[in-house]
Amino acid sequence: MRHEQIEMHPTRWGDPARAQALPAEARGLVEMVFGVDDRPAVAEQPLTPPVIEAAALAALEGAVGAGHVLTDDATRRLRTRGKSTPDLLRARAGDLTDAPDAVVRPATHEEVAAVLAVAVEHRLAVVPFGGGTAVTGGLVAQREGFAGVVSLDLVRMKRLLAVDHVSMTATLEPGLRGPEAEELLAAEGLTIGHFPQSWEYASIGGFAATRSSGQSSAGYGRFDALVVGLTVATPIGRIDLGTAPANAAGPDLRQLFLGSEGTLGVLTAVTVRVRRLPEVKVYEGWRWPSFAAGASAIRTLAQAGLLPTVVRLSDEAETAINLADPGAIGGAADAGCLMIAGYEGEPAAVAAKQAAVTAVLTGLGGTPAGTAPGEKWSAGRFDAPYLRDSLLDAGILVETLETATFWSNVDRLYTDVKAALTAHLGEPALVLCHISHVYETGCSLYFTVAAKEGADPLAEWQAAKAAACDAMIHAGATITHHHAVGRDHKPWFAEEIGPVGVFLLRAVKADLDPSGVLNPGVLIP
Amino acid sequence: MRHEQIEMHPTRWGDPARAQALPAEARGLVEMVFGVDDRPAVAEQPLTPPVIEAAALAALEGAVGAGHVLTDDATRRLRTRGKSTPDLLRARAGDLTDAPDAVVRPATHEEVAAVLAVAVEHRLAVVPFGGGTAVTGGLVAQREGFAGVVSLDLVRMKRLLAVDHVSMTATLEPGLRGPEAEELLAAEGLTIGHFPQSWEYASIGGFAATRSSGQSSAGYGRFDALVVGLTVATPIGRIDLGTAPANAAGPDLRQLFLGSEGTLGVLTAVTVRVRRLPEVKVYEGWRWPSFAAGASAIRTLAQAGLLPTVVRLSDEAETAINLADPGAIGGAADAGCLMIAGYEGEPAAVAAKQAAVTAVLTGLGGTPAGTAPGEKWSAGRFDAPYLRDSLLDAGILVETLETATFWSNVDRLYTDVKAALTAHLGEPALVLCHISHVYETGCSLYFTVAAKEGADPLAEWQAAKAAACDAMIHAGATITHHHAVGRDHKPWFAEEIGPVGVFLLRAVKADLDPSGVLNPGVLIP
Repeated sequence: MRHEQIEMHPTRWGDPARAQALPAEARGLVEMVFGVDDRPAVAEQPLTPPVIEAAALAALEGAVGAGHVLTDDATRRLRTRGKSTPDLLRARAGDLTDAPDAVVRPATHEEVAAVLAVAVEHRLAVVPFGGGTAVTGGLVAQREGFAGVVSLDLVRMKRLLAVDHVSMTATLEPGLRGPEAEELLAAEGLTIGHFPQSWEYASIGGFAATRSSGQSSAGYGRFDALVVGLTVATPIGRIDLGTAPANAAGPDLRQLFLGSEGTLGVLTAVTVRVRRLPEVKVYEGWRWPSFAAGASAIRTLAQAGLLPTVVRLSDEAETAINLADPGAIGGAADAGCLMIAGYEGEPAAVAAKQAAVTAVLTGLGGTPAGTAPGEKWSAGRFDAPYLRDSLLDAGILVETLETATFWSNVDRLYTDVKAALTAHLGEPALVLCHISHVYETGCSLYFTVAAKEGADPLAEWQAAKAAACDAMIHAGATITHHHAVGRDHKPWFAEEIGPVGVFLLRAVKADLDPSGVLNPGVLIP
Repeated sequence: MRHEQIEMHPTRWGDPARAQALPAEARGLVEMVFGVDDRPAVAEQPLTPPVIEAAALAALEGAVGAGHVLTDDATRRLRTRGKSTPDLLRARAGDLTDAPDAVVRPATHEEVAAVLAVAVEHRLAVVPFGGGTAVTGGLVAQREGFAGVVSLDLVRMKRLLAVDHVSMTATLEPGLRGPEAEELLAAEGLTIGHFPQSWEYASIGGFAATRSSGQSSAGYGRFDALVVGLTVATPIGRIDLGTAPANAAGPDLRQLFLGSEGTLGVLTAVTVRVRRLPEVKVYEGWRWPSFAAGASAIRTLAQAGLLPTVVRLSDEAETAINLADPGAIGGAADAGCLMIAGYEGEPAAVAAKQAAVTAVLTGLGGTPAGTAPGEKWSAGRFDAPYLRDSLLDAGILVETLETATFWSNVDRLYTDVKAALTAHLGEPALVLCHISHVYETGCSLYFTVAAKEGADPLAEWQAAKAAACDAMIHAGATITHHHAVGRDHKPWFAEEIGPVGVFLLRAVKADLDPSGVLNPGVLIP
């Protein structure tokens, strides 16, 4: 890639140049609801010196070449944890105790394999690092039992390895960030169509390792559904998977590595289905009298095979706050619930789909709201994390969490998780929700909360989050639809897959990574 | 279920009452091409007496109840092997050496678990048995190292456990055959939409355990894609999987059991996505000047998101033989290639899809052939295995095999497999092919061969099949798109997933089934 990589700020989201003060209307809302309590981050602190022995560092340099094993504070700081609110709260408080001892930058599959061999020999914990956008603790390795922690930074693995215009697939290296991958493919007239909120920084490897799902998943599919092939470096050797679009040749081993969060191997190449760049993109708004009415309409579309490319539905609270239009938060909003429906593709196909969807939604009582709400959503779709930083500056704890369930269980899940959050966050607090990803058999629910920070905002949030996670599991839903397990979701993940599932995952981990050097402490209960 | 179960004939496919003599025109073709050489099956032979000790049989009776452990020859004969041509050749020659020692019929998950516990204690190999339609040796367990072989017959597990009309899912027991499951669901206005050629006998558990794919897969999806939940009895305990339509909660463990062919556990409940029964079914024919032209048109449809419910394309040879219309085999046929396109659903949706597809196909040079070819295909879609029996009676070896690859590799795969079969079957032989399952990124190729039986038809076929499998692997394709691995595909399966994949599968097997009692010798290289 010709780009110089923009590094995210150690204590904030995204491009430091795009950091923004809280917009006036949002600040007004905050002052009205919570009261502003400015809480700036503490000044940057020096890190604890790295503990890795010289022999191990030399072996790492042997694996990746001199100049690609970095132990300076600035580099280590940028490879510390992810970007959850707890991560940011710790970083803002000057706590960077989870910083890796060294950042190692392999350029090829073979160099990744060599790093793993060094890690096994020298008992180093290895944390694969792509975009650094993790929000569930997936970048925090356990130190106990290891002679050091290494961040395996995939920043040098940014090639487009192959494009197949006939089969419509592309093979990408894991370090490519979303925009980098899309730029390379756009030159070929292609797109992956995977645009999660983290897209500007998250990486191809991270998308696969966490079963990411993008805002256009209704049209393009979630990332794990786009993957047709994988190359993985494991401590016991290389594995290449994906000989056909689908097959009956035993269990689908790709599905063990998708979602494995760096604990079973390091993805060194990912082959994905691609589509032609859409000629047309139309995003429009719809109004519904209630969340239930809108959800029922979305279910009707999904089960009729009529899903738009993008479909999202905010509940009454989220609609009232204008969360789909970050620039207008706190401003006037209509009652009811806002749905965004987006169509991408060739003009004729877009027009046909739009007409069919419009007929269904109108028949179900939806009110078209024109393209303005859709355009605002689209313009602001990657901005919410910047807003979170501004709110944290103002002493407002903001975080998101998400889950998914089958349609018949959505009402219960919504009610129970909202109640758990509301009860534990106390007053005043905002608990907002939207349906973000839709399937024939169910959907995801994505919650956003805002509450005034107390004396220990981290502990306060963790209690509320635990209550929400309890509610998800008690409702029979999943602990995570697209944020992965990391460290934060492990107890509930164990409940979700049960004791045999936990045993099986532990056994697979022991089979593939007998020394346990790969992202120890993450995912595996 | 109120049905008495119709058992397949021990040496033939399907309902013995539906056995048929070779139709006159097909017999004429056979006489012209090969010469008829009648080879009736030998008379039914007594089986080797069962070797299981009395204590083990008593323990099995304790697990499932007296009356549900059967050791009579008639029952054992009906649970011997599957229905591949090699299976039939052996059975017709009087070789039933792979008969199980006992047939055990549990009625519940708990009874399945109890059988597994007895098997571990008494060192009995356990072969889960659903419909008995396996074609790759998946029902033949290894005897060495075991005190007997038990067929775990799921014939008593035929309940529809749950229907969720909101989420559009249904939970089924594994012993339900295709028509039984569809009848139960039809009473609810629902369908799975999974109709492989084996559908009349194959079971829900078998569909899941082999990653089956049906003739309507373009519209309804392959079976593994329909599964949202699984309950599995393993020797180390029960596991329930499937908390949401999709999630990011670690690796998708369901995908380890789908395709596991009874080697990792016994599926005791399967939750699938269902659809409303289609109001309209339209099947029509299209003519293409060449296989390549038709394949290109199908690829265009798949990549435009315009697939019909059913889409298949016969090559020139298969078209000339009328294989899509078994009743007309040997009769007059047009030149070029026949495509079948089928549409199922609500009238308006069917009409819209049909119009869009028709426009694309016409623009690409296809010639509509009306509904007659489609209706004939539909009427005969489950009959080919009966025809195979008639041909075996006439001394003609008939078998099928299949593979899949990405679109850019289809020409090579087609050419190489066809050449391998033709070279090894000698003259005269027929090698026919159709595209049977279609994806955005590729498709399956399904080959049918016919050749005059020589002195050792089993060995002759095995040599030709091995050459075809070599060609698949050398072309980078999968060894099986929907027939599973069984025993027959193991050597090539090992090449397909590589040494780390083989190690991983073996390790997972050892983790879940430490005594190795589950279908030993099957799947795991």
